[in-house]
Amino acid sequence: MSDLEALKKEAALRAVALVGSGMRVGLGTGSTARYAIEELGRQLQSGELRDVVGVATSEASDALARQVGIPVEALDPRPLDIAIDGADEIAPNLDLIKGLGGALLREKLTEVQARRFIVIADHTKLVGRIGEKSALPIEIARFGFLSTIERLRAVLPAGRLRQTGAQPSVTDNGNLIFDAQIPEGQDIAALERTLKGLLGVVETGLFLGMAERAFVAAPDGVTELTPQGR
Amino acid sequence: MSDLEALKKEAALRAVALVGSGMRVGLGTGSTARYAIEELGRQLQSGELRDVVGVATSEASDALARQVGIPVEALDPRPLDIAIDGADEIAPNLDLIKGLGGALLREKLTEVQARRFIVIADHTKLVGRIGEKSALPIEIARFGFLSTIERLRAVLPAGRLRQTGAQPSVTDNGNLIFDAQIPEGQDIAALERTLKGLLGVVETGLFLGMAERAFVAAPDGVTELTPQGR
Repeated sequence: MSDLEALKKEAALRAVALVGSGMRVGLGTGSTARYAIEELGRQLQSGELRDVVGVATSEASDALARQVGIPVEALDPRPLDIAIDGADEIAPNLDLIKGLGGALLREKLTEVQARRFIVIADHTKLVGRIGEKSALPIEIARFGFLSTIERLRAVLPAGRLRQTGAQPSVTDNGNLIFDAQIPEGQDIAALERTLKGLLGVVETGLFLGMAERAFVAAPDGVTELTPQGR
Repeated sequence: MSDLEALKKEAALRAVALVGSGMRVGLGTGSTARYAIEELGRQLQSGELRDVVGVATSEASDALARQVGIPVEALDPRPLDIAIDGADEIAPNLDLIKGLGGALLREKLTEVQARRFIVIADHTKLVGRIGEKSALPIEIARFGFLSTIERLRAVLPAGRLRQTGAQPSVTDNGNLIFDAQIPEGQDIAALERTLKGLLGVVETGLFLGMAERAFVAAPDGVTELTPQGR
């Protein structure tokens, strides 16, 4: 396991420690969330945890959860006790960019229902401002996507359609992803409203005001972050 | 042909008269738009029109257009010369409710690009205010739809998931439809922004400020309407 992978796992274990028996748990997507799902499965197998039910944020996490022995249910309107997921960027107020893994819509729909949404990451995901390092993934309808991209470029000029090889990447919901650069000096909450309001935009990867805390692993240990200035 | 069907066809013929040779034409969806597509096909076959290309707003209209001999292209960012479609409600300012046919997202994406968007309908679709007779169709993501419906009900309490038999109806984009009642006294533009901003909402059936004119057929003839008070 590389150093970075070891850090991701360390952060994941800290979050899983917040899960108690009987809880309904939102299961994130991506390489860091994977460690949390595997650890939850291990604790269910060993008997450290009982009666935990997972609600998966992607087909991939659903499959992994079943594989490691976590019973999985569909999302319904009941609140989740907790959700654990990675992020692509974490700002000091715990605003996030998510969706590089392509599951942003399902992640957002799931995590908005969690009483506690816990973010796990390695230290490379910390930023001073949203958009500093990462592109913002924006999920858009496949029909008419070229026109939707023109509307997006009027707001965020730099960006491109995500592709897998020569083909556009398709989300679990059958949509496409446009990855856009966020210039400095943006009002992020206003940007989110503008983007979501555009015709053809299904959802954005901005997760604002949702995370309760983050466990961020660095070589010198895991830091527990709560929102600053929110 | 019933009286109402004859009226729909009369309105459709008036709109098709605006189509010239060489135009790219947005083809609507539903029982009134069907007459326009059939007439376009007939005029292409007879030679009254040449070099017309259709851009269809649904799989059904795509199939019908090909069947009657209209070459069909996918939507791209080029403007359409004209789009012709029905509506479920037409207000005096030509704000519309559309989507009872289930194609609202594709219709909106297509018609927003038309230099001229022409509405065709029989007189029963005219209303004094949006929401007077018809429910508002709202296209929502399938994943987590029960939670999205709870968010919608906080804004528009009366409404229900559209079903085909015992199953939820699925749109051409793989989404579901929630049909909501609009109470009197709503600011419709603000409602549109609120609804589109909700997590899980893909698009609404409110077509505001888009229609250039409407041909509305009544037993005493076809009336040509332009927006009042816009």
